[in-house]
Amino acid sequence: MKIAILFGGSSYEHEISIVSAITLKRALGAKESAFVYIDPDREIYIIEEKNMKSTYFSSREYKKAKRVRIGKGDIYQASMLGEKGLGVDIVINLIHGRDGEDGKISSILDFNSISYIGPRTSASVVSYSKRLTKYFATGIGVEVLPFEMVDRDDERREPSFGFPVIVKPDRLGSSIGVSVANSMEELDYALDVAFEFDDEVLIEPFIEGIEEFNIAGCLTSGWELSIVEKPQKEKILDFDRKYLDFSREEAVSEAVIESSLKRELEETFQKVYDPLFTGSVTRCDFFVREGRIYLNEINPVPGSMAHYLFDDFPEMMKRLSQNIPLERDIKVNYSYIDSIRSAKGKA
Amino acid sequence: MKIAILFGGSSYEHEISIVSAITLKRALGAKESAFVYIDPDREIYIIEEKNMKSTYFSSREYKKAKRVRIGKGDIYQASMLGEKGLGVDIVINLIHGRDGEDGKISSILDFNSISYIGPRTSASVVSYSKRLTKYFATGIGVEVLPFEMVDRDDERREPSFGFPVIVKPDRLGSSIGVSVANSMEELDYALDVAFEFDDEVLIEPFIEGIEEFNIAGCLTSGWELSIVEKPQKEKILDFDRKYLDFSREEAVSEAVIESSLKRELEETFQKVYDPLFTGSVTRCDFFVREGRIYLNEINPVPGSMAHYLFDDFPEMMKRLSQNIPLERDIKVNYSYIDSIRSAKGKA
Repeated sequence: MKIAILFGGSSYEHEISIVSAITLKRALGAKESAFVYIDPDREIYIIEEKNMKSTYFSSREYKKAKRVRIGKGDIYQASMLGEKGLGVDIVINLIHGRDGEDGKISSILDFNSISYIGPRTSASVVSYSKRLTKYFATGIGVEVLPFEMVDRDDERREPSFGFPVIVKPDRLGSSIGVSVANSMEELDYALDVAFEFDDEVLIEPFIEGIEEFNIAGCLTSGWELSIVEKPQKEKILDFDRKYLDFSREEAVSEAVIESSLKRELEETFQKVYDPLFTGSVTRCDFFVREGRIYLNEINPVPGSMAHYLFDDFPEMMKRLSQNIPLERDIKVNYSYIDSIRSAKGKA
Repeated sequence: MKIAILFGGSSYEHEISIVSAITLKRALGAKESAFVYIDPDREIYIIEEKNMKSTYFSSREYKKAKRVRIGKGDIYQASMLGEKGLGVDIVINLIHGRDGEDGKISSILDFNSISYIGPRTSASVVSYSKRLTKYFATGIGVEVLPFEMVDRDDERREPSFGFPVIVKPDRLGSSIGVSVANSMEELDYALDVAFEFDDEVLIEPFIEGIEEFNIAGCLTSGWELSIVEKPQKEKILDFDRKYLDFSREEAVSEAVIESSLKRELEETFQKVYDPLFTGSVTRCDFFVREGRIYLNEINPVPGSMAHYLFDDFPEMMKRLSQNIPLERDIKVNYSYIDSIRSAKGKA
């Protein structure tokens, strides 16, 4: 089976995606993989395995690699005789942030009937916007922390839940543009920073020392859930630390929690995942406070697919690739045009 | 300004889109338009103006037209010297249902930095799924009718709000697969029909004679709102009638309602539209019952752009084309890779 790992993209997390792809390559150990890089200008290249090193990209050496395009049913490379398909059986979407997690890549792959591991377009949109994640969670009966949206033109006023607050651009991952504010003055500054990245910004109460737990998984022939991880973090995981996090290879040890909490986290994960996130390996980040679970974030393209949370990651990916949701076949036979034309006497 | 009207698509509403494009061509009267047709197999053709007739498509004559592809910044046609751009300034997305309203076309256009009139990907996803529309409306404080989701595997049981109910596939427009059920027996049948079109189905109370009002609009340099229309309809607008509806050219007369209700409908429309639907001409269908407004549906690609609801449609489209939201420019300078590498001592 030929797997194409798609990475890069026009995203603030472009470099994270490069590191993520290099790490995933090792974790998968697949000989039959192709590495397809979307550069910051959205030019697409096929990268030779030996060149899968971060300096190959940062030095712009990749520009000498061969160009490809995503077309019907495959990824194509120009050749003497026109175009030649790479023979890709399945794509792994490993583009973090814009392009990969906002629904663009899934749309392009679906339009071209290419099978892929990653969130479908609707799952992407719901998880990419923190506001839509909140609405979705509330709709399916999963709790979230309260929040307020702030518009660039809004008069700045004290948040209804008081300080400290955490300020987040609506549509970015990896903690970019996120900061904590303890006063109106700090809030002003935090908002300015956040508006650098998005026109819509949300504010949440910042709860010092709230417990956080991550769980990842997917639906193949049955549920495949990861261990529950308790991430070790500073006040907030800053970009540099998160970046290092994306390249980690060591296994993570399971959080020491009551079995009832574990079961509840797993059930909440399943409620979020099914059916919207089918086809992807998704990681959910939860807060737990006074025994209640709150959904913080949904990551449908987690760093290097969160492989370190699973026991036998390569085998799971194989099973997942055999359980990808496909679009329905729609037949068009022009019968309405024909019937309406005869009704109008234009037959 | 060269406008490309994009129509067709792999959608149950493929034929509706053809009629819609023919009607829009007349309504716009633009000499500088190109007509770009996506056929049921998602092959893309450029259609000469003289061939913009429904039989040209139903007879498959279009297969003799020239093929094009959507590429960076333009739509390209193969020529003797490689490829030649059509010089498109803006695309009007007139694909109804799948491909056009589910986020695929917007994603492909955004990925290629092509400006377009139509919903962005996030707006598409929110309006395409009736369930996500409900969650979104509730989130922004707009009322909707109660509903229940039904899964193919669910044991069928009486809906909590009693009969009659209306059964709808989650992700289809134009009343396809929608039916009213007055009993458990009818519900069983209605569900079987709906599951033909989607794996997720929702049930709502069916309220005989509930008043319905439509309003369309867009945000250009300011708000441009249509008249409020009270659609004339049977119990539900069936597919044939809706189909004819999409080709109508006559102006519609304004609904006779209290000015306070009119204002409230307009305000509710604005609340739904801004900012998610910017860049599109969107039509919202509302129910009104005992003075309360309920959002029924959001149509971000209404039939022939709901031109018949506006006074000076061509001028409005010009203003809209000058107020299209653009993606942020993201610069990637590989500084993280460089800094992390030096931190790791691999400089």
